[in-house]
Amino acid sequence: MMLKQAADFLLSHDNFDIITHAYPDGDTLGSGFALCLALQQLGKNARVVYTRLPKDFVFLTEGVIEQSFEAQTVVSVDVADEKLLGSNREKYQGKIELCIDHHRINRVEAPLKCVDPDAAANCEILFSLFKTMNVTFTEQLANCLYTGISTDTGCFKNGNTTSRTLRTAADLLDLGIDAEKINKVMFDTKTKLKIKLEQELYSSMEYYSNDRCAIIAATLEMQKRLGIGDDELEGIAAIPRQIEGVLIGITMREKETGVFKVSVRTDRSINAAELCAQFGGGGHAQAAGCTVTGTTEEAKAKLKKAVDGVL
Amino acid sequence: MMLKQAADFLLSHDNFDIITHAYPDGDTLGSGFALCLALQQLGKNARVVYTRLPKDFVFLTEGVIEQSFEAQTVVSVDVADEKLLGSNREKYQGKIELCIDHHRINRVEAPLKCVDPDAAANCEILFSLFKTMNVTFTEQLANCLYTGISTDTGCFKNGNTTSRTLRTAADLLDLGIDAEKINKVMFDTKTKLKIKLEQELYSSMEYYSNDRCAIIAATLEMQKRLGIGDDELEGIAAIPRQIEGVLIGITMREKETGVFKVSVRTDRSINAAELCAQFGGGGHAQAAGCTVTGTTEEAKAKLKKAVDGVL
Repeated sequence: MMLKQAADFLLSHDNFDIITHAYPDGDTLGSGFALCLALQQLGKNARVVYTRLPKDFVFLTEGVIEQSFEAQTVVSVDVADEKLLGSNREKYQGKIELCIDHHRINRVEAPLKCVDPDAAANCEILFSLFKTMNVTFTEQLANCLYTGISTDTGCFKNGNTTSRTLRTAADLLDLGIDAEKINKVMFDTKTKLKIKLEQELYSSMEYYSNDRCAIIAATLEMQKRLGIGDDELEGIAAIPRQIEGVLIGITMREKETGVFKVSVRTDRSINAAELCAQFGGGGHAQAAGCTVTGTTEEAKAKLKKAVDGVL
Repeated sequence: MMLKQAADFLLSHDNFDIITHAYPDGDTLGSGFALCLALQQLGKNARVVYTRLPKDFVFLTEGVIEQSFEAQTVVSVDVADEKLLGSNREKYQGKIELCIDHHRINRVEAPLKCVDPDAAANCEILFSLFKTMNVTFTEQLANCLYTGISTDTGCFKNGNTTSRTLRTAADLLDLGIDAEKINKVMFDTKTKLKIKLEQELYSSMEYYSNDRCAIIAATLEMQKRLGIGDDELEGIAAIPRQIEGVLIGITMREKETGVFKVSVRTDRSINAAELCAQFGGGGHAQAAGCTVTGTTEEAKAKLKKAVDGVL
């Protein structure tokens, strides 16, 4: 029903701005470019709007035609809250007509919402939506959808993976995509610089609450000294929760002096979104984020106090 | 046809020794315990024979009944060559009656062979075999099969993953298994000791042939100094091939003074099994192994020469 409404909306509109969330990941970008390809295939004008395109995701843009048009319809993909639009917030806030998302808590104000929190990835919703719309599944469309699904599930490792997720991925593989190549880039490729960063993060990891919480911090000083940028910082949020016995893994990334973007990953016994809500953030139950201010030590102290409250 | 023959054989025999390969992994052990559970469910006597049971795999033994009987039938699972039986070789060599395997090159001498090299994991073959045998898929049986499939594909990341693999995993998930828990143990749990080891391996990594080959060595000295054992050494073979641009990743593990067990992981442009065959080893096209002797430097020089020959 929800899919049918979204399909009807897309089929009956034109000139789309497809908007993605800031600090874009494989799912928001995979969704964006897949939807753009599908709409262009149907003879419509569409473009993907993003704050940044990390180099590993450039291949998603293949086949997308750059079209010149005045936007009439705004669709958001994988955006849980308009606050998460980053530098595009001002331009698009209040203008989203169709919101396609899979976050359990979705705060986007839009006349039409297609939100399925049981979907492991937003791209999983698009797979069903495209079927409803009779879109032809090209290999490149499948590449985009697979990238979203595989990155949002940690390559089918995480608890959000369902049998539907795996069957969707199977259907995409049958379209002839090179999943191995995509996965190698997404999960198994590290630059020497990235290894240097990881070494430093592991060495400086701190443990709290009888080693049930581990915390790492990529400070501005460290980023500058090692010469690392956004590309190297991708994915570091998974590091602290990997340690045996750690129930809460916290990764702090200093964005500007004294302002930390914090990622929290938790065991199923602890709700990461609730923990982050204490700092005005949110996200999924086992992976959430927030912003904490202060010196590195002050920010750590605030987080430690919140952790003590839930452990 | 092959499955039907194997099923008939298993249904018409009893008192099974199910044998696994040395340095056991999730697929050989998952296969062993799954087959044992299936045969016991059918009212037969069966046991799994292994050289070692790493602590992370102990959960696979749940539900298996320890039975006292004299073995009459020997079945091998995931064993490509009788040489790979390790300390069980002497007892079982020449006695395997049914060989179930998925390696492209299988050298086991057995009257009945059920080998499907297109299966990503041996457990994928067993899934089909059990259907042919009308085995009831219990949750614990599914745990064993899922563990084999997930570990042998790097959690569906590697190139051996097919749509059949993903659909098999989907069917197993539908049986209610806790795949997230299994994957966390298999892929996302590191002890502090393991991190120490990884740090040292990354720091001492050497590059050859314009950085297209990377090599790490866990020497006996290092193993002793850090106090690491087999548990920590699991999985280190994936490290060198992760580096951006590296086509051949080589991991040396000193078993006794001057004897190195070598794991080779390659890009699809290079055949790892052929490279290892130069040293009397073998395996899959992108993941193979061999033994090389000498001091660490001598062994590295031998490997470097072989690498120069293929790059």
